Amino acid sequence: MTTGSRLCRVAVDAMGGDHAPHDVVAGAVAAVRGGGIQVSLVGDPDQVRAELAKHDVEGLPIDVVPSEGVLVEGEPPALALRQKPKASILVATGMVKQGHADAVVTMGSTGGTMAAAAVVLGRTPGVERPSIGGPIVGLAPHTFIADLGSNVDCKPAQLLGYAVIGDVFARQFWNIKRPRVAILSVGSEAGKGNALVQATSKLLSESHLNFIGNVEANDIPLGRAEVVICDGFVGNVIMKLTEGLGAALSEHLRKSLAGKLSESDLDHVIKDVYDLNNVVETMGGGPILGVNGVSVVGHGSGRAEAVQRAIGTAEFAVNNGFIAKINEELSQIQQLVDD
Amino acid sequence: MTTGSRLCRVAVDAMGGDHAPHDVVAGAVAAVRGGGIQVSLVGDPDQVRAELAKHDVEGLPIDVVPSEGVLVEGEPPALALRQKPKASILVATGMVKQGHADAVVTMGSTGGTMAAAAVVLGRTPGVERPSIGGPIVGLAPHTFIADLGSNVDCKPAQLLGYAVIGDVFARQFWNIKRPRVAILSVGSEAGKGNALVQATSKLLSESHLNFIGNVEANDIPLGRAEVVICDGFVGNVIMKLTEGLGAALSEHLRKSLAGKLSESDLDHVIKDVYDLNNVVETMGGGPILGVNGVSVVGHGSGRAEAVQRAIGTAEFAVNNGFIAKINEELSQIQQLVDD
Repeated sequence: MTTGSRLCRVAVDAMGGDHAPHDVVAGAVAAVRGGGIQVSLVGDPDQVRAELAKHDVEGLPIDVVPSEGVLVEGEPPALALRQKPKASILVATGMVKQGHADAVVTMGSTGGTMAAAAVVLGRTPGVERPSIGGPIVGLAPHTFIADLGSNVDCKPAQLLGYAVIGDVFARQFWNIKRPRVAILSVGSEAGKGNALVQATSKLLSESHLNFIGNVEANDIPLGRAEVVICDGFVGNVIMKLTEGLGAALSEHLRKSLAGKLSESDLDHVIKDVYDLNNVVETMGGGPILGVNGVSVVGHGSGRAEAVQRAIGTAEFAVNNGFIAKINEELSQIQQLVDD
Repeated sequence: MTTGSRLCRVAVDAMGGDHAPHDVVAGAVAAVRGGGIQVSLVGDPDQVRAELAKHDVEGLPIDVVPSEGVLVEGEPPALALRQKPKASILVATGMVKQGHADAVVTMGSTGGTMAAAAVVLGRTPGVERPSIGGPIVGLAPHTFIADLGSNVDCKPAQLLGYAVIGDVFARQFWNIKRPRVAILSVGSEAGKGNALVQATSKLLSESHLNFIGNVEANDIPLGRAEVVICDGFVGNVIMKLTEGLGAALSEHLRKSLAGKLSESDLDHVIKDVYDLNNVVETMGGGPILGVNGVSVVGHGSGRAEAVQRAIGTAEFAVNNGFIAKINEELSQIQQLVDD
C-alpha cells in the first residue's frame, strides 16, 4: 500500500491492446500528470520512446522497461507464456511480484493477463481459478457481476468466492456498507433455478453476506443488487449481449433519429447508448480477481482515456488494500466451502 | 391441416393473461374478422359474453365454451392442473386433443400452458420435456432462440432437439431454405465453451443441420444465424436481459431526449426501443415446442393486438403442418441421440 508521500508505482504493458503503444503511452502520461502515480512503460524500448517523444514528459516519473514480444487475444495463454517468456505482460507482472511495482495494467489479452497473474503472482488461497468481474451494465453502475467468462463450468464454492470478492469490491469502490448480494436465476422465488443456483443459494444463506436471494436478468439494469453472481458462461453472455444490443441499438437510433435531432444531439445520444452498454471498453477495466496482487485488464479496443481510467482503478485498489481485504474475507468462508 | 375451404378452428383461453377477458375477446374478434379463422372462447360464460356484447359479432364464427377457474403465473403447474381440472387452459387444450379445435391460444401462465400441453396433447416422440423458443430479439427478427427457460439443466440431446425444431421453424415461418444453426458460446472458435456446448457441438456436426459453429451473445442482434440454441437458463437470461435493457434504455431516452424532439417523435422512439426489445409482449407469442398439437402462448401483459397475432401464429402453424414436420425431423436425429 502506498502512503501519502509515496507514489503508487504502476507497471503498464505498453504493447497490449488494439491501440498500443500509441494510446497506452498517451493514457499513462495523462495518469501520471494527474498525480500520485509513477509509471513504468513495459515494451519495445524504441517504439515506446518514439511514443513518449510525442508528449512533454520532462520531469515526470515515467521510465521505460524493455520487453520482447506481446501476447495477443485468442492465443492459448499457457502456451504463449512459455513461448514468449519476455513478453510485456510477463515482464510487467513480474515487476509486481518482485516488488518493483505496486500494480500492473494492460489493455492486452484477458486470457494472457489472467494466466500471467496466476502464474507469476499466484492465486489467492482458496481460489481455484482467477476470474474477472465488475460493473458491466452501464444502467446499473453499482452492480458488480461475476464471473464474466473465466470459469464456464462453475462449482457452488466458486460462486460463493465471487460473492465474497464482489462484496469487498462494492464496499471499497462504492463505499456501500452492506452490499446486497444476489444470485442470478430464472425466477425470483427461492427454489427457482438450475442445480448450480440451488446449491450455491444454500452456501450464500449460510455465509456472512447480505444475501437477498434471486434476481432475474431484467432486474440487472434496475440495480436491484450491488453484487450479482453467476457462472462464467452466463456472465459472459450478459456482458456480450449488453455490448451487442448497445451497439446495435445505437446504430438503429442513428438511422431512426436522423434528421429529427441536431447533428450534435444525434452524436451525443448515439454515443451515450453505446457507452452505457459497452462499459468495459469505455470505462477502463477491472482487476483480475483471486490473485495475489493488483493486475488490471482493460478492453483491447480501449483508447487513451480508458488506459488512464484503468491506471486509476489500479491505484485505487492498491491504496485501499483490495487484495489483502479479499484474502481476509475469503478465509472467513473457507469453512463453509470445506464442508 | 385445414384446407382452403375450411376455417382454422382456434380454442382461445379467454381467461388467461393480465387483460383477460377484455383484451383476449377483442383480439379474438379481430382475428376472426380477418378471415380464415373460427374461434371458441373458453372461459366463464357470463364474463366472456359480457365482453362479446361490446363487439358486433353477428354472424361471425365465434362460440363460447364454458370453463371454471384459471391457472395463474407462478402457481406450480402440476398441482394447479390437478386442483382445477376445468380450468380454461385445460378445457381449451382438451378441445385440440378431442379434435374439436386445430390449435389452442392463451396469454396465460406459460408454465401452466406447457404442463397442460404435455399432459393433454402428449409429448413429441423423442422429446423429454416441451420447451419454448422463438425470435425474441427484435433487432434480429429472423433468429430463433431456444430454450427460453423450460429446461434449465439441459442435456446435449435436448439442445440438438431444439436445433431441429428451430430449423423447421425458420424454414416454415421465414421461408429460409437452409437455416444457419449455431450454438451460443463464450468465444467464436470451435472448442470454446462449457462442457454442454462441447458435447452438443459434436452432435450438431453429425446431424443433417447446417451447423455453423459458435456464436457469441453480441452476435445475436446482428442476425448471424437463424437458429441459436442454448440451455434454458441461458436463454431465459437472454430474453429477460433484452427485455430489461430495452425497458430501461427506453426510460433513459425519455429523459435524455426530452425537449430535443417533438412530443410525437419522442413517444415514437421510446416505444420503438421498448418494442424492439420486448418482442414476446408486443409481437404475440410462440408455439410450445415438442408437444403433439399447436399450443401458442403469449406474454401475460399482451393486449388485443398481441392476442390477434398469437392467433395468426397458431393458424400459420396449423396450415403448414408445423407439428407433423417437427415430428418427422426429430425422428431423423433419433439415432444420433440414442448413440
